[in-house]
Amino acid sequence: MIKVGIVGGTGYTGAELLRILASHPQVEVSVLTSRQEAGRRADVLYPHLRGHCDVVFSAPDADALADCDAVFFATPHGTAMQMAPALVDKGVRVIDLSADFRLRDVAQFKRWYGLDHACPDLLAESVYGLPELHRERIRGARVVANPGCYPTAVQLGFLPLLEAGLVATDGLIADCKSAVSGAGREAKVASLFCEVGDSFKAYGVSGHRHWPEIGQGLEAIAGETVGVTFVPHLLPMIRGIHATLYARLKDPEVDLQAVFERRFAGEVFVDVMPDGTHPETRSVRASNTCRLAVHRAPDGKTAIVLSVIDNLVKGASGQAVQNLNLMFGFDERTALSSPPLAP
Amino acid sequence: MIKVGIVGGTGYTGAELLRILASHPQVEVSVLTSRQEAGRRADVLYPHLRGHCDVVFSAPDADALADCDAVFFATPHGTAMQMAPALVDKGVRVIDLSADFRLRDVAQFKRWYGLDHACPDLLAESVYGLPELHRERIRGARVVANPGCYPTAVQLGFLPLLEAGLVATDGLIADCKSAVSGAGREAKVASLFCEVGDSFKAYGVSGHRHWPEIGQGLEAIAGETVGVTFVPHLLPMIRGIHATLYARLKDPEVDLQAVFERRFAGEVFVDVMPDGTHPETRSVRASNTCRLAVHRAPDGKTAIVLSVIDNLVKGASGQAVQNLNLMFGFDERTALSSPPLAP
Amino acid sequence: MIKVGIVGGTGYTGAELLRILASHPQVEVSVLTSRQEAGRRADVLYPHLRGHCDVVFSAPDADALADCDAVFFATPHGTAMQMAPALVDKGVRVIDLSADFRLRDVAQFKRWYGLDHACPDLLAESVYGLPELHRERIRGARVVANPGCYPTAVQLGFLPLLEAGLVATDGLIADCKSAVSGAGREAKVASLFCEVGDSFKAYGVSGHRHWPEIGQGLEAIAGETVGVTFVPHLLPMIRGIHATLYARLKDPEVDLQAVFERRFAGEVFVDVMPDGTHPETRSVRASNTCRLAVHRAPDGKTAIVLSVIDNLVKGASGQAVQNLNLMFGFDERTALSSPPLAP
Amino acid sequence: MIKVGIVGGTGYTGAELLRILASHPQVEVSVLTSRQEAGRRADVLYPHLRGHCDVVFSAPDADALADCDAVFFATPHGTAMQMAPALVDKGVRVIDLSADFRLRDVAQFKRWYGLDHACPDLLAESVYGLPELHRERIRGARVVANPGCYPTAVQLGFLPLLEAGLVATDGLIADCKSAVSGAGREAKVASLFCEVGDSFKAYGVSGHRHWPEIGQGLEAIAGETVGVTFVPHLLPMIRGIHATLYARLKDPEVDLQAVFERRFAGEVFVDVMPDGTHPETRSVRASNTCRLAVHRAPDGKTAIVLSVIDNLVKGASGQAVQNLNLMFGFDERTALSSPPLAP
Repeated sequence: MIKVGIVGGTGYTGAELLRILASHPQVEVSVLTSRQEAGRRADVLYPHLRGHCDVVFSAPDADALADCDAVFFATPHGTAMQMAPALVDKGVRVIDLSADFRLRDVAQFKRWYGLDHACPDLLAESVYGLPELHRERIRGARVVANPGCYPTAVQLGFLPLLEAGLVATDGLIADCKSAVSGAGREAKVASLFCEVGDSFKAYGVSGHRHWPEIGQGLEAIAGETVGVTFVPHLLPMIRGIHATLYARLKDPEVDLQAVFERRFAGEVFVDVMPDGTHPETRSVRASNTCRLAVHRAPDGKTAIVLSVIDNLVKGASGQAVQNLNLMFGFDERTALSSPPLAP
Repeated sequence: MIKVGIVGGTGYTGAELLRILASHPQVEVSVLTSRQEAGRRADVLYPHLRGHCDVVFSAPDADALADCDAVFFATPHGTAMQMAPALVDKGVRVIDLSADFRLRDVAQFKRWYGLDHACPDLLAESVYGLPELHRERIRGARVVANPGCYPTAVQLGFLPLLEAGLVATDGLIADCKSAVSGAGREAKVASLFCEVGDSFKAYGVSGHRHWPEIGQGLEAIAGETVGVTFVPHLLPMIRGIHATLYARLKDPEVDLQAVFERRFAGEVFVDVMPDGTHPETRSVRASNTCRLAVHRAPDGKTAIVLSVIDNLVKGASGQAVQNLNLMFGFDERTALSSPPLAP
Repeated sequence: MIKVGIVGGTGYTGAELLRILASHPQVEVSVLTSRQEAGRRADVLYPHLRGHCDVVFSAPDADALADCDAVFFATPHGTAMQMAPALVDKGVRVIDLSADFRLRDVAQFKRWYGLDHACPDLLAESVYGLPELHRERIRGARVVANPGCYPTAVQLGFLPLLEAGLVATDGLIADCKSAVSGAGREAKVASLFCEVGDSFKAYGVSGHRHWPEIGQGLEAIAGETVGVTFVPHLLPMIRGIHATLYARLKDPEVDLQAVFERRFAGEVFVDVMPDGTHPETRSVRASNTCRLAVHRAPDGKTAIVLSVIDNLVKGASGQAVQNLNLMFGFDERTALSSPPLAP
Repeated sequence: MIKVGIVGGTGYTGAELLRILASHPQVEVSVLTSRQEAGRRADVLYPHLRGHCDVVFSAPDADALADCDAVFFATPHGTAMQMAPALVDKGVRVIDLSADFRLRDVAQFKRWYGLDHACPDLLAESVYGLPELHRERIRGARVVANPGCYPTAVQLGFLPLLEAGLVATDGLIADCKSAVSGAGREAKVASLFCEVGDSFKAYGVSGHRHWPEIGQGLEAIAGETVGVTFVPHLLPMIRGIHATLYARLKDPEVDLQAVFERRFAGEVFVDVMPDGTHPETRSVRASNTCRLAVHRAPDGKTAIVLSVIDNLVKGASGQAVQNLNLMFGFDERTALSSPPLAP
């Protein structure tokens, strides 16, 4: 049994960590911080956790966190990089669900997040927490950068094509659609039910913070420069991301289905659907699975990958627990094995 | 490990049984019937179950079912009463999610369902599967009538008031709201997304089949004639029932909160919320919990009970598994202990 | 052509006034105030109005408003009662969509809104703007108190029963369900898509500000003390209110359908549905119609009225324009005659 | 005043024609056919039309239709081509909302719709009813092929780029998302609320009937062969299409905003949004407007066009009425000038 802390437990990713960890037999949530909610039981804020979680919010306290085996940061960017170095020094392992450790290049971080990075050294040693790419390094990591939701869906979808060098690396297109929970639990007009319900739109077409993360990830996979256009859209639903990915095939004859099945053969959280099918976001609701299907456009020259995840699970808190499991030698599926919820 | 069969596995309650039983360590689903889907894997119809369930639909076969320890009927009314007697004779225990064994009075059954009852004797010995009322009898039952979704929410909400004789038994009002999955997975215009989305209506005001079941249940609890008005409404959502219950208090001074907390103190699947709160349907999504709050109207004379369940779980398949657990001596919570899903 | 001003144009009722008035041939919106948005075109905030409305937000200015023939207040409570007296003195007619002029009794106003009323004299002469009750007085009014959304649906539904003395006046029950736009366009967590989507709950059971308004209205209709229990609920949809109303009939033999049809025979915005039907909220979406159906419970002793409105139209801005039409001698249906939008 | 008939009035496009035409001062709907609903008032099926439409369904009758000035076909494919020749012979003008007259090439029609074309001659003279391209020819047409919903959104979005020769004509991508009403009002499991609600998926990736229509249209605009990949997706909402269009720019320096504004300067139903904005589908809900925004991807080399329509209006019945207006010399905006509905 290990003790974990959650810094910033009032958002959706914090609540989702609590939900998932409630079923984890080897983990006890011993610290849950929120300045604003200090003193309140978590299940007052989240009545669905009544009977499953008796932790109480507390103001952030360095000593209490240092007493944990692992600490999750479910905070806006800028917090984890301030607090992580001291924790790591005390032997606490850090899983950051924010963006602080995602971009390898501090100049890029500054450009997209407007901040100087507070601990470039720790950034340099941190590991990007996509287990399907970096499983072994995650096991030993002191700091894991949990990937963004869009980057998770996009990288897993392009992975087999780029690793095998099957597509042109310029002109990639990632047309992505996210449910509203991706915007967090902040009170803003743009996330109101009556603003996003029964409607659909693109946003951030001129530049979104997940774009450099996607580009960095795809280039690492391809081993060369990659040109990718990324357009995010907002879906009138609660959970789920659907990435529709387009790439020009070098060889129109390649057996895409076989390539995908082979690449993910051993992966417990990636499911390659049968040829000709279309994954629905609800088929992964509440689960850590990424479900993929690969198609060829009628022209035969374009590969189309359909990639769905639950943005709060594989796109955030579930992947964070998957990383925790790897870091502490637990079965990778612990607390992540319940079937998805449909309908 | 017991073997169970599911007759009629192509509807929402059948799929939900598969989802729940996938986490049950002592149960194997060995038969899943559907004439129409015979030969197809269940996870082709329900891709969310990929990796969690490898059962294949088969045409109904008496011998295969007789080989099970228990059989669930997730069929329209009229089927279970035809097939149950033979199964019971062979020692198979039956849990019927349809209406065939809910009404004690065959004349009432005929009136509301238009059929002569096929096995009045078995009906007479069957047990109404609301564990909070009949736990001991369920343990030994050969046939359990799994309650309707509305009747579950309504009976649990009125239970403490009627048992303790705190309210007038005429003039009870049950204003109930159900999500669309309550209408099943049948192809009908009235259940189309564009027909029920972003809209709300009452239906069946002049008479709904759950009304006699509610009346029968409340009278059994109260030990006297009860007059209850029941109005169902259709909510533009997928899962959840909210029953708003009104009753005239005999003694305006009674401590309603204490009455409710005392009555359900030992119940693992009934949660009495704190005084002054309002349960949300999402707080029980995907769980077997019934969450209740009790209020007094500003006039002091009317008790108002708010009762929420997930219609597919506590209102159907979850309660059925709870009954199975009781019948076979398993821990009542087995396969039913995951936290609800919110948001 | 008259000139109207709208004070507080950044909420849903303000936007809806703009949408409706865009089709009004005798009205020009000459002033639209918002401190925060001053200088911005309304159609930047509301792109659906591009091409239909070129008004620009301005900071509230007494002279500009005094130059109008009529001013709508689409503000939180407390503003209209401060500004109305000066406007009325200058001959401007006021239609207040907030609560400032709804409660006749200043003590009640203080109790429920926490404020001393700023102009009790003007309150005394103001007219409650439910045209189906006060059409003639509205024509001549200087200040019209536009009714609340719930009170509109509830009063119209109980009206025929109470006017004709057909039901017991104690023990009335109004179980009401509102779409989320009723909570306004304010940034609050409780109105986020992920908080209210795919869920349903009651709120304010212990006391809601529309309760005294409903009580006052029903007592005025009945001519005697009325006891009404009011429970509001929040629907996961954008527009629409459904009131389900219960009353004990004095004479179980009365022809309710005829009573309702007779009472509303001449009303252009009240539609009595055929016997046995159930109005859907979407059947009045975007329209000023209140659609009603009246039923008798199976016990024969309880009248059940189903009443639906679009909360932003008949429950707010549409009724306000209906009142404006009456006050200025326009056809009552002007700008309000488009069919509802379904699906 | 002209008389129009609607063949196949029980689907969403039929109902939407009734809603729109209810406000058309020069049109009387004199015939509305449906075998199944013959004898029933339309407002029984569509209660939102109560008070706006008193037409009664009748069985299809050649003489009654021949007595109309114009006939709309709101039928599945295969019906209009059977009935149109006789009507045209009698001087009736035909607007076909189905696919029968959309594809110029009968071989393509056979390939995608599985039928031999019943009247190739009439097909040859028919006009594709996209007024922004063929306004003058529509005025004189005897048969107008009303475009598909996806093709409308896609063609209007690519139009300025292709007409001006600004982009490479191979490798065009149209990632399209449609609301569920696009699937019609047929009773099918795939359109149930619980199947599509709170979920999102692609469909028909290997080939969709709108693909050849899009290709034919883009080639006509470009004047050369065009390679376009089209992926449709299903949105959990009622109305709206969002097309996200990608094309490689020949000259990265071109002023896209100016190109779009110039091209659509005189168009009443196409709105080019300001630079940097993102149209929402709700901003055109219930209206005949296509709202567009054009962006350049961060790489500078890719044009991204965002195009939204209401699939039932500009994507079907509204465009049909726009065509009718042109054919009979009415103001093009008649019955189509109400503002969109938001929220």
